[in-house]
Amino acid sequence: MSDLPLQTTDRAPAGRAPVEVDVAALADFLARPHADLRARVLSLLATEAFEFDPELDRATHRARTLEALHIIADQGLGMVGLPRAYGGEGNPAGAVAVFETLALGDISTVIKFGVQFGLWGGSLYQLGTASHHDRWLEAMGRMELPGCFAMTEIHHGSNVRGIETTATWDADTDELVVDTPHENAGKEWIGNAALHGRMATVFVKLVVRGEDHGVHAVVVPIRDESGKPMPGVRIEDNGPKAGLNGVDNGRIWFDSVRVPRDHLLDRFGRITDEGTYESPIDSRGRRFFTMLGTLVAGRVSVAAAGVSAAKTGLAIAIPYSDRRRQFGPKGEPETPILDFRMQQRLLLPRLATTYALHFAVRQLAEDCGAMVDAGQLEEEGQEVEARAAGLKAYATRHALETLQACREGMGGRGFHAANRIGRIRQDVDIFATFEGTNVVLLQLLAKSLLTAYRKELGSLGFWDVVRMVTDRAQERVTELNPIVTRRSDPEHLRDHDVHQQAFEYRERRLTASAGRRMKQLFDRGMNSFDAINACQDHLIALAHAHVERQMVEAFEEGIARAPSAGVSETLRTVSQLFALERLEADRAWFLEAGYMDPPKSRAIRTEVNALCGELRPVAVDLVRGFGIPDDVLRARDA
Amino acid sequence: MSDLPLQTTDRAPAGRAPVEVDVAALADFLARPHADLRARVLSLLATEAFEFDPELDRATHRARTLEALHIIADQGLGMVGLPRAYGGEGNPAGAVAVFETLALGDISTVIKFGVQFGLWGGSLYQLGTASHHDRWLEAMGRMELPGCFAMTEIHHGSNVRGIETTATWDADTDELVVDTPHENAGKEWIGNAALHGRMATVFVKLVVRGEDHGVHAVVVPIRDESGKPMPGVRIEDNGPKAGLNGVDNGRIWFDSVRVPRDHLLDRFGRITDEGTYESPIDSRGRRFFTMLGTLVAGRVSVAAAGVSAAKTGLAIAIPYSDRRRQFGPKGEPETPILDFRMQQRLLLPRLATTYALHFAVRQLAEDCGAMVDAGQLEEEGQEVEARAAGLKAYATRHALETLQACREGMGGRGFHAANRIGRIRQDVDIFATFEGTNVVLLQLLAKSLLTAYRKELGSLGFWDVVRMVTDRAQERVTELNPIVTRRSDPEHLRDHDVHQQAFEYRERRLTASAGRRMKQLFDRGMNSFDAINACQDHLIALAHAHVERQMVEAFEEGIARAPSAGVSETLRTVSQLFALERLEADRAWFLEAGYMDPPKSRAIRTEVNALCGELRPVAVDLVRGFGIPDDVLRARDA
Repeated sequence: MSDLPLQTTDRAPAGRAPVEVDVAALADFLARPHADLRARVLSLLATEAFEFDPELDRATHRARTLEALHIIADQGLGMVGLPRAYGGEGNPAGAVAVFETLALGDISTVIKFGVQFGLWGGSLYQLGTASHHDRWLEAMGRMELPGCFAMTEIHHGSNVRGIETTATWDADTDELVVDTPHENAGKEWIGNAALHGRMATVFVKLVVRGEDHGVHAVVVPIRDESGKPMPGVRIEDNGPKAGLNGVDNGRIWFDSVRVPRDHLLDRFGRITDEGTYESPIDSRGRRFFTMLGTLVAGRVSVAAAGVSAAKTGLAIAIPYSDRRRQFGPKGEPETPILDFRMQQRLLLPRLATTYALHFAVRQLAEDCGAMVDAGQLEEEGQEVEARAAGLKAYATRHALETLQACREGMGGRGFHAANRIGRIRQDVDIFATFEGTNVVLLQLLAKSLLTAYRKELGSLGFWDVVRMVTDRAQERVTELNPIVTRRSDPEHLRDHDVHQQAFEYRERRLTASAGRRMKQLFDRGMNSFDAINACQDHLIALAHAHVERQMVEAFEEGIARAPSAGVSETLRTVSQLFALERLEADRAWFLEAGYMDPPKSRAIRTEVNALCGELRPVAVDLVRGFGIPDDVLRARDA
Repeated sequence: MSDLPLQTTDRAPAGRAPVEVDVAALADFLARPHADLRARVLSLLATEAFEFDPELDRATHRARTLEALHIIADQGLGMVGLPRAYGGEGNPAGAVAVFETLALGDISTVIKFGVQFGLWGGSLYQLGTASHHDRWLEAMGRMELPGCFAMTEIHHGSNVRGIETTATWDADTDELVVDTPHENAGKEWIGNAALHGRMATVFVKLVVRGEDHGVHAVVVPIRDESGKPMPGVRIEDNGPKAGLNGVDNGRIWFDSVRVPRDHLLDRFGRITDEGTYESPIDSRGRRFFTMLGTLVAGRVSVAAAGVSAAKTGLAIAIPYSDRRRQFGPKGEPETPILDFRMQQRLLLPRLATTYALHFAVRQLAEDCGAMVDAGQLEEEGQEVEARAAGLKAYATRHALETLQACREGMGGRGFHAANRIGRIRQDVDIFATFEGTNVVLLQLLAKSLLTAYRKELGSLGFWDVVRMVTDRAQERVTELNPIVTRRSDPEHLRDHDVHQQAFEYRERRLTASAGRRMKQLFDRGMNSFDAINACQDHLIALAHAHVERQMVEAFEEGIARAPSAGVSETLRTVSQLFALERLEADRAWFLEAGYMDPPKSRAIRTEVNALCGELRPVAVDLVRGFGIPDDVLRARDA
């Protein structure tokens, strides 16, 4: 009966040619770009200093993590993104590749690496000017000067603009006086603060001659060489966390701490010798977002680390599921658990999504790196920022869900600390929160999409109108043409253009509907804050739709770059599973929109099951393609 | 526009009277039944011995957990379920209440409690006979004789029938000889084995005069009083885990370990003095499932612990979300984050589902206890077993997702070890696996539903036919009647009968379609193992539908028992959110089935948002209703 809920015609996998995987060629392809840098990091991770110990106490874990950072710095891997003039390799995208590869090891190490070289170093480089670079960059990159990035406060996490720490210019001494106005304005969760940091980029409200010029960054020494806190600086250990205990997070309070005026990182706002405030950006809002925007590499890196964590989990759980046998037909040997449909459903679509994210995030890192290179982030960074926000949220959510699936898919073995999955899941848990809480990031993305949409509508020339009318017509055709709405044969369902069209349609329609709705609320006199909150679930759905559309495209571009027909054919099947399973996951929306009818929706489920069946025999090869050597994977039962 | 995706008419919460909560009356109601026992446990958990330490090393954690068990046993709380003759209180349902309440504290403690009193004690009581009870029950209940439940093997976890350990009767000495045939037949993950257990109920294949009689249980001493392993017993520590490190899991191998014949727990199978095997149950399959069935209390208890863990998480995250402010309209104070729609969406439906599970699992515990009391489990236990399987899977999944939501909803504070959420999540993680992997349990449930359905179809008398025809007719009415399918006013959407009908319809239809599909596959000559696997996702969906239908009914029965109109009105709104949000979550199915049309589907989303808005002001009161005192909650930022 065609109307059976959950009906899937239980046909043998389509009589298709079996999927084949050239593991070596695939691994070689996935190692690009920056294959050399990745190889350098992998060989380091395979050494004894990076062995996995499932139950280090906090103090030992922190000490080992610090040691690891020195080793990494000694290899010059902390400065890859810096100009050669400061001992770097002038390769910002390469720096993300280093971060991404380090994330295959202990997550505490890669996060402390990010604190030191990405946040402390990155703030010096992006927010500072020549004098700051000359003074501090090399020592930072050599780990001779461990530092912090002191932005978050106890009362202001997500809402950075609300920070209350101040830096007031003292005309008499030409110094900046840094103050924490009250206990809850103390800096919170600051990596490197509890033990190892000697300097800190402190985010403050800059006050000059009684005027508050908004958020700026000031470099403040917080410890002397002996490790003793500087006068006026109070530091508290944030204590044990649910994960990442190799990173020494702490709280910092400042009581009239004085630094010379030139400790102000003054690329976007300076105090002249005459004691007047100057900025190349007049609008305080734009200045704030421009400053934060230059730090986008942090979000790109976290997204990349999320992809690596998902890869590690799958590289452990899939080979185990391929070997582990349980139950079976009467009188026959037991069945590998990866032959069970629910196990395939649990792991293989996540494997496909990991591939999609791989290409999307690699592309993002390259585009971001190119902008840093060209020093264009502040002018043309918005697109990259929006993409980074969306992919950071999507990739970190995916990492969490994938590691959970891997834990459960391995049963008790997944709970074995020696199999690393539990620790990694605990460590990446906070990825959903730091570098921007995912909900906040997705809302930012949605708002930027709506702004672009308004601009588009506002500035319509003749040809735009023609184009949009055509778009609308196409939508209508797709939407109402019973042939397309109902077509459910495998050829159609596996067609990339069909996927692309569906993801584009969903995004366009969610954009238009969200825009109309916001306008209705404004017209009713609602303020924008309440209007956004009233539509928040709508906006988050729009952001998701946008990210998935970008992933479908990035995957396609990845396939186009494949070195051989074999590799591209393998990736084609993986991309079909990714796209179809994502459409299945949101089929309620497509049914509500009338974009597909019930039989087509069920046919998609059938096809997802069929694709899982086709990829199952090569699932192990597909995780081998990630190129994670056993001596880096370090899992007992992988 | 009515066709907007994610459209929700942004109306002020319905002009309804605000929801009110009589916290004291609600808490008093939720403490029933066995309020006295729960109070005894809560006062114990508030003592110093049960203080929360976020970073105990494994050895100390295990020692503290052992100490806790002695304290609990000294209070007689380990024997509540045992007959008074053995020092118990003859209150099996009360024993689950004790377990459920202990689960508000350290999860390692409640799990070790379950190993000792539920599994080791329960196997003695349920599988043994008078002589075993007389010899061991009291010492077990007083913690004078710590024991293990040695069922799982390295190569056989979920598939218990596949265990390979043997107990062979030696006619000459009238002993049973216990052997581990090969390394991977060793017992695995056995609680109490690594350190504290002195005895073990060992599950073996019983061999008498060369004939294998299938799975039985034998009591084997594994350590002497000094803690030294007995001759022929090899024990290995399972080592560090991703959680639950207060429980000393281990592996056990047996090499010709001899015990007297009367160590066979012989309620369901004995060896006579003449050396012949006898059993009250002829069918080996039925005997196996009857034996396991008597251990159903374990699954009931884990389900109850899952509910407690979810309550703890919400009791920490919701008050924090009510206080924590971030962002806000220009020039106004910041907004409590629980005012944000996504935060409400994150926490409030899970709060509602926790209430639904509360009533469903409490009812299950009572029914299960009554059967144990009446010694009827083996005859009439199937219904309770199926319900326990489904609710264990559902409640543990819910606990994991809720704790994750609480962690993320609290941002960095959720990651603070001192807020407990991370640890609890790590500890309950394995709930999805032990006492039956969730997928396997849901599949068992689905199979039993299909069996019942076949019987129903097979044994149709006149009135059955009439009834079924009527049912079908009703389905058709519901399904095709455009008024019902399209009705989307709040009165209709909040009507319990509407919910009940929808959940019943989904379950009936999934049962029929799964049945038809299995039959088609059998008719094509597919064996039952492959047929079940081909329909596995379908069967899991059926099991979920069944569990949720039971939850809707249990919630309704709970409301009917409410002590006052006030309490029942409060619960009514919570139950509406639960039912509607669950329908929303599976709206794709209802759309595919033509049970609701797109506008109705969107109207449900609108109503879920409205209900979240109505419950938001009383969300803190609703978690206070759980009756968890601060000195038991022990969370820094709750």
